[in-house]
Amino acid sequence: MTQSPPDISALVAGIRRGERRALAKAITLIESHRPQDDIAARHLLAALSPIPDTALRVAISGPPGVGKSTLIEALGLQAVARHLRTAVLTVDPSSRLSGGSILGDKTRMSRLSIHPLAFIRPTPAGETLGGVARRTRETMQLMEAAGFDLLLVETVGVGQSETEVADMVDIFVLVLQPNAGDELQGIKRGIMERADIVLVNKADGVAIPAAELTCAQVDAALALRGAVASAWQPRTVAVSALEERGMAETLDMFTTFRYTMTASAAWQNKRQVRNTAWMWDRVREGLLTRLLANDTVQNVLAELEPMVHNGELGPVEAAERLLDVFVGSGN
Amino acid sequence: MTQSPPDISALVAGIRRGERRALAKAITLIESHRPQDDIAARHLLAALSPIPDTALRVAISGPPGVGKSTLIEALGLQAVARHLRTAVLTVDPSSRLSGGSILGDKTRMSRLSIHPLAFIRPTPAGETLGGVARRTRETMQLMEAAGFDLLLVETVGVGQSETEVADMVDIFVLVLQPNAGDELQGIKRGIMERADIVLVNKADGVAIPAAELTCAQVDAALALRGAVASAWQPRTVAVSALEERGMAETLDMFTTFRYTMTASAAWQNKRQVRNTAWMWDRVREGLLTRLLANDTVQNVLAELEPMVHNGELGPVEAAERLLDVFVGSGN
Repeated sequence: MTQSPPDISALVAGIRRGERRALAKAITLIESHRPQDDIAARHLLAALSPIPDTALRVAISGPPGVGKSTLIEALGLQAVARHLRTAVLTVDPSSRLSGGSILGDKTRMSRLSIHPLAFIRPTPAGETLGGVARRTRETMQLMEAAGFDLLLVETVGVGQSETEVADMVDIFVLVLQPNAGDELQGIKRGIMERADIVLVNKADGVAIPAAELTCAQVDAALALRGAVASAWQPRTVAVSALEERGMAETLDMFTTFRYTMTASAAWQNKRQVRNTAWMWDRVREGLLTRLLANDTVQNVLAELEPMVHNGELGPVEAAERLLDVFVGSGN
Repeated sequence: MTQSPPDISALVAGIRRGERRALAKAITLIESHRPQDDIAARHLLAALSPIPDTALRVAISGPPGVGKSTLIEALGLQAVARHLRTAVLTVDPSSRLSGGSILGDKTRMSRLSIHPLAFIRPTPAGETLGGVARRTRETMQLMEAAGFDLLLVETVGVGQSETEVADMVDIFVLVLQPNAGDELQGIKRGIMERADIVLVNKADGVAIPAAELTCAQVDAALALRGAVASAWQPRTVAVSALEERGMAETLDMFTTFRYTMTASAAWQNKRQVRNTAWMWDRVREGLLTRLLANDTVQNVLAELEPMVHNGELGPVEAAERLLDVFVGSGN
């Protein structure tokens, strides 16, 4: 993507002014796999520091087909109507190869995408890790630096990975649809346990009674979670993204959630845990990146890998030799 | 566990003779979290090298309650009757705190556990990682060095983690029970895609028709996997561990599987990929262990961690500083 070395101070100024072009360019830099872009991205984040930790981060999760995109657009429209600067980080299932921001996803969220207070960033599905973009945390921080108030993060699929996403945000919203009884079976307990708010979408027309019934079933399932020591009791609401009903109530719930959690210190604790986990993820990734970038390691690896393949050398011993080459055997 | 430094050459001799006491001691060493035991465990594996790669490794997976333990014992009894030396690595749900081999699990597999050709190793559930013991791969290698022919690895739960286990073994067996239709919904597609053999257990008495129906449903689900490029087409069989029916057929299937895969070179490929993945897992783990054991890193960490907590320092920058301290910023 990036051809010439990016002008970090120009980017910083553009981001601080909330310019879309600067934001798009910065995200592309952050998502890049090129080592020199990675260095530039770190410099950019450092230049933006300290970044205020004020935006509300919300993950929107749920099985395919429940209307996550429609819901995010409806929520976003409600938010910008309240003068909240709203950023949407979404995964674009149609574009695995387009490279990101230019192609794909144009038809989704068409009303929100042209609003001056909104910014929508689709990431190609191929670039995802754990249900969100590989660099979602870094991108969220960028959005905070740019002064956004609300960050809506769409996740793909429902599975183990969603619990990772839950750790990156303030509020984890699970979206279901009427008659989701069977789905509830299929949805891993882990997700249910992490949901702060459950929205039963498509509660419109003849589906309203079914949506109310599903809400009751979800409430029963949530009650099974038992006495979770938390200031917040999860809530279930029937909404219709299509008819834009329930959106104001949902945003109000976000605010109530924030007040409740802030009052109990749980808010700050969660953010501290989150930042520490993020630091360790970066350390793990950085260790392997640096090991692989080491020439001596590469030479030894070229020698050892065929031996591990042939069974001449045990994987444990091979790993130890690589580590000794990289770190030194003094440890 | 281990008090005095272990006598590696005595252990090696004991393991080569297949002595239970030496095996138990070696596994305790391998599973230990103490750094000095970790070094001793690596020396032990190196001293046993090259370890013949001849044992058949089988993972037995499935939802709770399908009778995995009973099935493993019935399979094991059939195997020892064929003069196959059989090792069972199992997870003991009852003992989270007992420390492993002494307490717990005594009542399970009571017939197999006293057979001279069998060795059963329960690991406390608290020590598991990804559905199997943290050091299952190392323990399996030890069993191969001790001359076992068949390794049966029980996994707990059905989830994301099971695909990791599938990568550690030659044959991945999924156990279900009659009327598992609802369960099939809940079982993640990933598991279904990895199953080489599906056993529908509890096919006894009045449950036989239901078991046959479930077999047909599983076959239909497996057919949805489509044209998987593999020498082996997954098979579904109704068995009764309680009545020990279907055990001979299952062992025969293992043999057929091995012949089929060996003939197509898929066998060797899978083992090579497996050893390489194992090496990289050890490298990742070792990098972090060595970083944490580094005194300078610990000093810098004590300084940085509160800053990350307070939001004074970004997690990305903090990670970079730790990496620079450990590896040097030259890379």
